[in-house]
Amino acid sequence: MEKITSLQNQKVKAWTKLREKKERDRTGLFLAEGPHLIEEAMRQGIVETVITDGRYSFDGVQMVEAVPQVLKKLSASVSGVSCIAVCRQFTLPVKDPRRVLLLDRIQDPGNFGTLIRTAVSFGFDAVYVSEDTCDLYNEKVIRSTQGAMFHIPVIRATLSDTVRALQKDGFRVFGTSLHNAVSMSEAQESEKMAFVLGNEGQGVSPAILQLCDQSMFIEISGFESLNVAVAGGIIMYRYRGKR
Amino acid sequence: MEKITSLQNQKVKAWTKLREKKERDRTGLFLAEGPHLIEEAMRQGIVETVITDGRYSFDGVQMVEAVPQVLKKLSASVSGVSCIAVCRQFTLPVKDPRRVLLLDRIQDPGNFGTLIRTAVSFGFDAVYVSEDTCDLYNEKVIRSTQGAMFHIPVIRATLSDTVRALQKDGFRVFGTSLHNAVSMSEAQESEKMAFVLGNEGQGVSPAILQLCDQSMFIEISGFESLNVAVAGGIIMYRYRGKR
Repeated sequence: MEKITSLQNQKVKAWTKLREKKERDRTGLFLAEGPHLIEEAMRQGIVETVITDGRYSFDGVQMVEAVPQVLKKLSASVSGVSCIAVCRQFTLPVKDPRRVLLLDRIQDPGNFGTLIRTAVSFGFDAVYVSEDTCDLYNEKVIRSTQGAMFHIPVIRATLSDTVRALQKDGFRVFGTSLHNAVSMSEAQESEKMAFVLGNEGQGVSPAILQLCDQSMFIEISGFESLNVAVAGGIIMYRYRGKR
Repeated sequence: MEKITSLQNQKVKAWTKLREKKERDRTGLFLAEGPHLIEEAMRQGIVETVITDGRYSFDGVQMVEAVPQVLKKLSASVSGVSCIAVCRQFTLPVKDPRRVLLLDRIQDPGNFGTLIRTAVSFGFDAVYVSEDTCDLYNEKVIRSTQGAMFHIPVIRATLSDTVRALQKDGFRVFGTSLHNAVSMSEAQESEKMAFVLGNEGQGVSPAILQLCDQSMFIEISGFESLNVAVAGGIIMYRYRGKR
């Protein structure tokens, strides 16, 4: 096994750059940290190289051993990791969808990752995200998905096109808004449902809301608003997929 | 108005230390950033001093003007703020509670703050947190509450004592667990309900679960678990307070 002992190693320099979105976009690669995520990535066949301190070994993939400083440099974790994989970006195919989540300009990586995790938990079939939603391969997003990103298609798209395409396919598309909206309990359940959640500060953009079949709001008692990942969780639970 | 121009100023040094838990514990003070939070804090009468770059002014409280570098040093925000208040820690009184949230060793500040925000949104009356739950006055917690921490009592306690006291007061206390539990929809609604949410990795501790009247789980379709703030949101929505 190749052994890397220097931070000046050219590969280490190249891998470190993958912590930046620009370089991930350019190369189509990303970093996945820790044995759990690497196993999920291996199951998808997208792992190029695993860098490890020697404590982990994976079969059928190129392994590189590195000193702890190298892993520390590649990792976003403060507590340190024992293995990091260089992976190819991927998109799972959408199969016969019944429940779809649309994310309009979600900014916070934690919210984005949590929404993906929740979508998988409640049997959703796909997540479409606006071009300006934060990067799926941001390490905080990956960490927040807890591996769920390997179990659901996450597709970057022009949301107005997606809404129209879903409607053509028989979907009822719900916006989330406090104005001109029905309460979530009043919304009618149907076989194919899609829900649009919006930006943390501004909500769903008016142009998208206008395309939706209906808007819904979550009945709250006291405060003016909910965190978007919490709101998404409540909606996805209520209309969870049956599979 | 006093004007501070140097980072070496003794007050600036003392205030900067409030970014650390140890110093907050010692002094009983904390920092609140931005006009929205400061207004909420002023309504509670807990503001000692407001430090501003001159763009904001608040009546009936000691104001200090400072150069941007000072505000930047005090602030946890990367984008910078125009005003920061030094506030006294506080606990609102619990009044005739019907819905209570208990948090057992929540670690992530974002989760903690979001749970407080959601509790207010769904008409909960109090949040009790175990001694080892993260610090309420951590800036990430404060930011995630979005001001909600000024609208609900958040009380640090020995949770086993709290569970017993609530039960004595007629509360039905629900743990959250996948084992020996009923699904959330099956749980019986009652006038006084309390819910215990647990640590991100380990869930509610067995000793607390044992004290609970019943445990519940959220019906999921695909994945193994939910983020704790999402789980809390779904439960609190389902059993939201009626006031």
